[in-house]
Amino acid sequence: MNAQTVLKPYVIGLDLGGTNSVFGIVDSRGDIKATTAIKTQAYDNVEDYVNACVDALHIIIDQVGGIEKIKAMGIGAPNANYYKGTIEHAPNLVWGKGVVPLADMLSQSLGIPVAMTNDANAAAIGEMAYGVARGMKNFIVITLGTGVGSGIVVNGELVYGSDGFAGELGHVTMVRGEDGRQCGCGRKGCLEAYCSATGVARTAREILAKTSEPSLLRDIKSEEITSLDVSIAAGKGDKIANEIFEFTGKMLGEACADFTAFSSPEAFIFFGGLVKAGDLIMEPIKKAYDAHVLNIFKGKAQFLVSGLEGASAAVLGASAIGWDIK
Amino acid sequence: MNAQTVLKPYVIGLDLGGTNSVFGIVDSRGDIKATTAIKTQAYDNVEDYVNACVDALHIIIDQVGGIEKIKAMGIGAPNANYYKGTIEHAPNLVWGKGVVPLADMLSQSLGIPVAMTNDANAAAIGEMAYGVARGMKNFIVITLGTGVGSGIVVNGELVYGSDGFAGELGHVTMVRGEDGRQCGCGRKGCLEAYCSATGVARTAREILAKTSEPSLLRDIKSEEITSLDVSIAAGKGDKIANEIFEFTGKMLGEACADFTAFSSPEAFIFFGGLVKAGDLIMEPIKKAYDAHVLNIFKGKAQFLVSGLEGASAAVLGASAIGWDIK
Repeated sequence: MNAQTVLKPYVIGLDLGGTNSVFGIVDSRGDIKATTAIKTQAYDNVEDYVNACVDALHIIIDQVGGIEKIKAMGIGAPNANYYKGTIEHAPNLVWGKGVVPLADMLSQSLGIPVAMTNDANAAAIGEMAYGVARGMKNFIVITLGTGVGSGIVVNGELVYGSDGFAGELGHVTMVRGEDGRQCGCGRKGCLEAYCSATGVARTAREILAKTSEPSLLRDIKSEEITSLDVSIAAGKGDKIANEIFEFTGKMLGEACADFTAFSSPEAFIFFGGLVKAGDLIMEPIKKAYDAHVLNIFKGKAQFLVSGLEGASAAVLGASAIGWDIK
Repeated sequence: MNAQTVLKPYVIGLDLGGTNSVFGIVDSRGDIKATTAIKTQAYDNVEDYVNACVDALHIIIDQVGGIEKIKAMGIGAPNANYYKGTIEHAPNLVWGKGVVPLADMLSQSLGIPVAMTNDANAAAIGEMAYGVARGMKNFIVITLGTGVGSGIVVNGELVYGSDGFAGELGHVTMVRGEDGRQCGCGRKGCLEAYCSATGVARTAREILAKTSEPSLLRDIKSEEITSLDVSIAAGKGDKIANEIFEFTGKMLGEACADFTAFSSPEAFIFFGGLVKAGDLIMEPIKKAYDAHVLNIFKGKAQFLVSGLEGASAAVLGASAIGWDIK
């Protein structure tokens, strides 16, 4: 622990979601010292949102000994531009239309440095600060949730790219041409269209429609099947559910083989709901990776599950951006 | 120019190819001050090869004022491991079987630091030192030659990955499953199988076999068509030749769209024989890229032709690794 960490032992993390904005004050070991939250969408404009953030934060800042103890604040948010500290054209935030300079606004109100990136990048920095990537210089975090996101670390630094938006591995093309599944981004065949929660549910419906094999999933209305239902059924040994995970894992493993040709990471770290299925999803990923990766890379990369799982994972990830401010 | 560059104004570059080993002494502007060469394969073992290198080098080192003027040496070589300074299991080098610690051997013989990487990585560092990437922090060099290679720069540093072998973008999968073309790496559907010189020649044969449309390429025996023949025919307006470039460019452009999802580079820089066809190949690449890249990245990346083209490009690239030694 260096002198600065002793004087300013905490960072603030903000997990800015479409529904809730959750704050935590975190120490260098990833222990959350105080926490609070506000409703993200209860404010018509960003000024009111920032004021509400500051009011909520002052209470927990006082609990840890005042703003002098805080090094910086990190925010994980949708459509965040790291270089500019802006949220840009966020479709799901009422006050997030256009380009919103949220990092600057909070920095001026609080009097500390504030940095912001998307949740997958925040997760990657969080893994490096407190999780399974401590000491690693080259790794890739893949978040499996409503979408498929990624945070890439190369030479010990997050890859933001020339514009601050690098690391969109959910949108590499896995199936080219017209056969590719429609993706929410408007293109076809993206990894996300197969491996997000909705992608897995779609795979379930497609596989169930193709056979008449019995399955626990047939007890659920086809259009209501979720990836969680698939996890539960797979855990009970359901053959169709395991076939769905085989398919999903194959897509992910083949995609990772391509990512290795890019940055040869020492580990892939998976984060999000689907990962709770454990080996049921991790084993198909590893099998497909081993079958597809270029010979010189075989057997080198580890496949790990996030060290930040749990309700506070996103806050921890966001807070870690605060330690990363230069 | 800093003090060290004044005292030690030169680096040595070695372009280590299967046939020739070409040396150049280069200044910080990329001017080659002296040059020499030996036959790579005239030596049965690496000790003899190193002795021959040193003998040849001493003559040109004396021409520029002695070893005191040389900061370091950079080598571009096949199967080079940057971290270890070794050539590993090079199938095309008689003295390169096993793991050969070439950088250390040359460093001890010459008394200067020596670093080594593959030619595509050398080309990327060369573009940064003397070429079109001066001042860029995020870009990707794609070399189109016998194979398809790549050198990736992120945050101003070359991406070597966890093992020193990152940046094998010729081996991302473009066509999945059994339909993919056999690649020299043993896998199917790699970018290299479509866009290397032999890949382009194969595309030519496939397209010629599919139609009876007249083409200048029909004057050449099918199995003897080269990518250079395709370039020449395309330059004369040959419709089939241009169709071959459209197909090749589509593969490259779609691949670049995926690479942008990874590192969002400010430029793609193309290097190698095929690039001499100019807009005939660059325009199809750009068209396919624009059609496939994720919306947030549209219109951002430049598509450039190497600033190091010419007979000495590989020596310049190799020499640039010398400046990069920390």
